[in-house]
Amino acid sequence: MKKIITIGRECGSGGHTIALKVAEALGIPCYDKEIISMVADKCMVSKEYAEKVGELLTNSMYQSYYGYGKISFPYSSPSLQDQINSTQVDIINSLAENSSCVIVGRGADYVLRNRDDVLNIFIKASMEYKVMISKEKHDLTNKEAKTILAKRDKERSKHYYFYTGQTWGDAKNYHLVLDSGVLGEDTCVKLIVEAFKNS
Amino acid sequence: MKKIITIGRECGSGGHTIALKVAEALGIPCYDKEIISMVADKCMVSKEYAEKVGELLTNSMYQSYYGYGKISFPYSSPSLQDQINSTQVDIINSLAENSSCVIVGRGADYVLRNRDDVLNIFIKASMEYKVMISKEKHDLTNKEAKTILAKRDKERSKHYYFYTGQTWGDAKNYHLVLDSGVLGEDTCVKLIVEAFKNS
Repeated sequence: MKKIITIGRECGSGGHTIALKVAEALGIPCYDKEIISMVADKCMVSKEYAEKVGELLTNSMYQSYYGYGKISFPYSSPSLQDQINSTQVDIINSLAENSSCVIVGRGADYVLRNRDDVLNIFIKASMEYKVMISKEKHDLTNKEAKTILAKRDKERSKHYYFYTGQTWGDAKNYHLVLDSGVLGEDTCVKLIVEAFKNS
Repeated sequence: MKKIITIGRECGSGGHTIALKVAEALGIPCYDKEIISMVADKCMVSKEYAEKVGELLTNSMYQSYYGYGKISFPYSSPSLQDQINSTQVDIINSLAENSSCVIVGRGADYVLRNRDDVLNIFIKASMEYKVMISKEKHDLTNKEAKTILAKRDKERSKHYYFYTGQTWGDAKNYHLVLDSGVLGEDTCVKLIVEAFKNS
């Protein structure tokens, strides 16, 4: 029996809602933005900054990382970005240690890769479906929604690759990959709960 | 409601057995080796040859394809290999047209890509799990099993790429990807049946 569920998700796929419903069905906590708050408190930065650094990698952030992570300057100290990521890793490990739970995003599948009690899920959908959902939710045009979704997933993907050396969303890193557009949110919840109870 | 299930599978993942059980649970036919027999009959070749050509692409076969497919010689006629693949495509289309069914492998997800009543599944597992299953089933050493599994999947992957331009096993081509080693065969069957009934 697995203890932890990690849920990676494409932006606009409904992964956050699915994660909340899975946690509710199983009667266990779900950690998503809560992790950001914990990291922000510990590192004394704003939630907005902690969120960006903890999951997204923009070009300017990459340059900053590069100065520390790749070229080993003598006497250099960890950048604030690295401190934030390191704190996030500690918090994810601590949550997994404490009790059964659902953890959304933040490369939790990779952070917890050495545990054998983790079920790794990825939620994806076609761009058409994600645009349809996002434009309604955030009052955007088709073009705006598509641009925002693509940019966000690209940043998530770069962050994941930078910290794990793996391809974000690659099926080989997950035990179950679901297309929420075709299956529907409620069926995704059912399948994840069933998989969790039987694995 | 979907009508057809296609199941792609890594060699040794138990995909064939899962497909049979899914079809049994749904009371619909499952086509796997049966397609090979139909192709062999129509093209008047042995089943062994039809099987190889219909799903695997070895180096020597690639050279043969290359002469026809890539360099457009004037007056060239389709090679036997292309005739076999073309017959296979016709048979898959015809099966999908006739009745609800499960189709295993043979790039059926790609062949049927323009239908909206198809649920595409991929079954995978860790190499450790696949070796464990295969060495028992075929009386092989760990090393032998690993070599055979890797070779077979490489040939399937090359064949899929040659005919579709897509990456075999890439999550974006499927609605549901399952790790049979972690979830277990029976849970995979349950999840696929549930997904099919609700999609």
